[in-house]
Amino acid sequence: MSKVEDRLERLYSFERSTDLFAEAAEIIPGGIYGHFSPTLTVPGSFPYYTAKAAGCRYTDLDGNEFIDYMCGYGPMVLGYCNEEIDAAAAAQQKLADCTTHPGEVMVRLAARLVELIPTADWAFFGKNGGDMTSYAVLTARAHTNRKKIVMIRGHYHGVAPWCTALGFGGIIPEDHQHILQVNWNDLDEFEKVVRAHRGEIAGFIAQPYHHINFGDQVMPAPGYWKGIEQLCREEGIVLILDDVRATFRLSMKGSGDFFGFEPDLSCYCKAIANGYALSACVGRKELMNAASKVFFTGSFWTSQVPMAASLATLKQLERTDAVGKMRETGTLLLDGLVELGQRYGLEVTASGPPAIPFMRFTEDSDLFWQQIFCSEVTRRGSFFHPHHNWFISAAHEKKDIDETLNHAEAAIKALKKQI
Amino acid sequence: MSKVEDRLERLYSFERSTDLFAEAAEIIPGGIYGHFSPTLTVPGSFPYYTAKAAGCRYTDLDGNEFIDYMCGYGPMVLGYCNEEIDAAAAAQQKLADCTTHPGEVMVRLAARLVELIPTADWAFFGKNGGDMTSYAVLTARAHTNRKKIVMIRGHYHGVAPWCTALGFGGIIPEDHQHILQVNWNDLDEFEKVVRAHRGEIAGFIAQPYHHINFGDQVMPAPGYWKGIEQLCREEGIVLILDDVRATFRLSMKGSGDFFGFEPDLSCYCKAIANGYALSACVGRKELMNAASKVFFTGSFWTSQVPMAASLATLKQLERTDAVGKMRETGTLLLDGLVELGQRYGLEVTASGPPAIPFMRFTEDSDLFWQQIFCSEVTRRGSFFHPHHNWFISAAHEKKDIDETLNHAEAAIKALKKQI
Repeated sequence: MSKVEDRLERLYSFERSTDLFAEAAEIIPGGIYGHFSPTLTVPGSFPYYTAKAAGCRYTDLDGNEFIDYMCGYGPMVLGYCNEEIDAAAAAQQKLADCTTHPGEVMVRLAARLVELIPTADWAFFGKNGGDMTSYAVLTARAHTNRKKIVMIRGHYHGVAPWCTALGFGGIIPEDHQHILQVNWNDLDEFEKVVRAHRGEIAGFIAQPYHHINFGDQVMPAPGYWKGIEQLCREEGIVLILDDVRATFRLSMKGSGDFFGFEPDLSCYCKAIANGYALSACVGRKELMNAASKVFFTGSFWTSQVPMAASLATLKQLERTDAVGKMRETGTLLLDGLVELGQRYGLEVTASGPPAIPFMRFTEDSDLFWQQIFCSEVTRRGSFFHPHHNWFISAAHEKKDIDETLNHAEAAIKALKKQI
Repeated sequence: MSKVEDRLERLYSFERSTDLFAEAAEIIPGGIYGHFSPTLTVPGSFPYYTAKAAGCRYTDLDGNEFIDYMCGYGPMVLGYCNEEIDAAAAAQQKLADCTTHPGEVMVRLAARLVELIPTADWAFFGKNGGDMTSYAVLTARAHTNRKKIVMIRGHYHGVAPWCTALGFGGIIPEDHQHILQVNWNDLDEFEKVVRAHRGEIAGFIAQPYHHINFGDQVMPAPGYWKGIEQLCREEGIVLILDDVRATFRLSMKGSGDFFGFEPDLSCYCKAIANGYALSACVGRKELMNAASKVFFTGSFWTSQVPMAASLATLKQLERTDAVGKMRETGTLLLDGLVELGQRYGLEVTASGPPAIPFMRFTEDSDLFWQQIFCSEVTRRGSFFHPHHNWFISAAHEKKDIDETLNHAEAAIKALKKQI
């Protein structure tokens, strides 16, 4: 699309984002964190910085407004600058946040999670999702007095060396000495590994369904989780659910309940406090003694503001049936995209639960079209990530989806001109 | 001291703290994080929960008010509920906090740290101090393509398995496979280790001075840091300063500058944003490429509120010469305690920099008297930690120190009755 056409369609451009990124690249390694490093997307095709945000929308540094389908990679679940949550946080901030002791709110929040999640007899809090997956791994080792951990090839559990691939800076083969990898949805492979390492495996850790980058999401096959659970029980393996990404988007009872199995330990983060920094690990009574022997703490781990925000978030999520609403809104979006694909002769594969959706063009296995399509949608006002699953929030309304489907239609037309 | 005397002196009691702790112990592993687990202090001798906090004081769940000599274990440096910092944070919260992209504030804060700290050519941000020490270790490995890390026996760098002692839950010998430990202030031992492992050592990590638990703090011997620096340069070892605990309490230029050496990487946290959750690693240009190859991120790592709070904190720290004030206030406290010891015939050993002080009774090497003394001071209104170094803030005034010395005098009298 030429510059003249850009102007006629008033497409967004990202000069200030790009300029600040160039400044950042001088003083921040890589310039920016994660998925928008210039090695992963075409420079200038997406915004890099948020200036302000409210509801399901944000404005970037260039003044462009977007309907956001990333929700800060998940934490935002009830809308940016949600009045009720921010008021609860501000009230707690005026009393006490990060002090020498925790607050009563820590105990109240632990009690709330225990009440909410069927397999939670206790709760422990940290800051990052990765704090909790590592804490769960240590708890499994402490409980079983075994060393090995089985994980799914390609699942993301944070940035600790045990779960980061060789090839990234500083990771050494010894970091994976006791990590065994199996394929998603392959119960036979899991059984073989488990029988071959009888008495050696401390824990099995997995996300509730397969949501890798650069690919379709894959839901659990029928019987998969029940089979995993049974094998774990038979062999005395601690079953760890990494529910960080799906936190309170599939069910208020956790994704274990949603998919019909009973994890020993479950890790939460992301949407737990609508953007305030908090993570949690909950577990069954049998694991509590081992958990208490793990040495785990951090400078801000007992801060009271995120805990007060979390209590308010849980309340609003339940009161408004946010989970049901996100499922409906996500379904509208995915159905609309599939229908657009049919209309324009570019078949769309939609994947994942509607509240945490992803789509790609079926023929576009290397995601080359995806890069163009997502950038074209983004430059019209709906932020679509080209290779990471998306997130719906309860602040997304039908009218937002309609607007986005208009952006998507124009983007498909623009894509067809380019391929 | 009998209950009658308690009431005559109106000593604090901690019923509500103790009751809530009992409730917590049912649903939180260990009941509470860190130093006040019942295995480390006598139950009922210290408060467990903060209800509210302002300036250098907080009120516990029982309504007792304390002058706080822990400052949340360091994060609070300009007073709890500091108006200027909280206003900057609230203004940022109204715009945007945890969103899909970082904010301009991330670049501004990186630039500010680069300007402030002589050995900082770049900056990277996380949430925990331990995020940054692990990031530094990975950067050192990526830079050198070597595996081994030398650390000081007893230094605290967070809770990652590489730096957590065997015996804690889930830690296995393999976690320390490439960790070499040497004694603090022993340059000869370091040289021997370095020469014996030529070409194998990626990094040396240490805190700027020795501040272990359950013991005196030990400042660096003359020439120690310069000697370390020289050996690291000779052998191509990345010199990592873990400045997390001392962040902006000894010098605004970092503890490397304060002790006259030039680390390759320095880790900050604690006081960096007056209690808002943030940590940073800064480094020299030569390390930037390696740092950019390390895969490191987290759900809330680009949140804008703590970064805005940090910019405001740095501004107020500089404008008010908080470092100078904390040195003076801490000196008043330590001198006063030493003088009290002399007056009552219980010699006091004061240790550490005045802004991060510790004291114990010289004859009391097992800290038995210390438990009693600190509890007696605490029950009169000044919170003294029995086995962890203390923290002074810029919100502590001379009148607060005078009040605390009165509490300390009464506590010494009470201690003498009991020993």
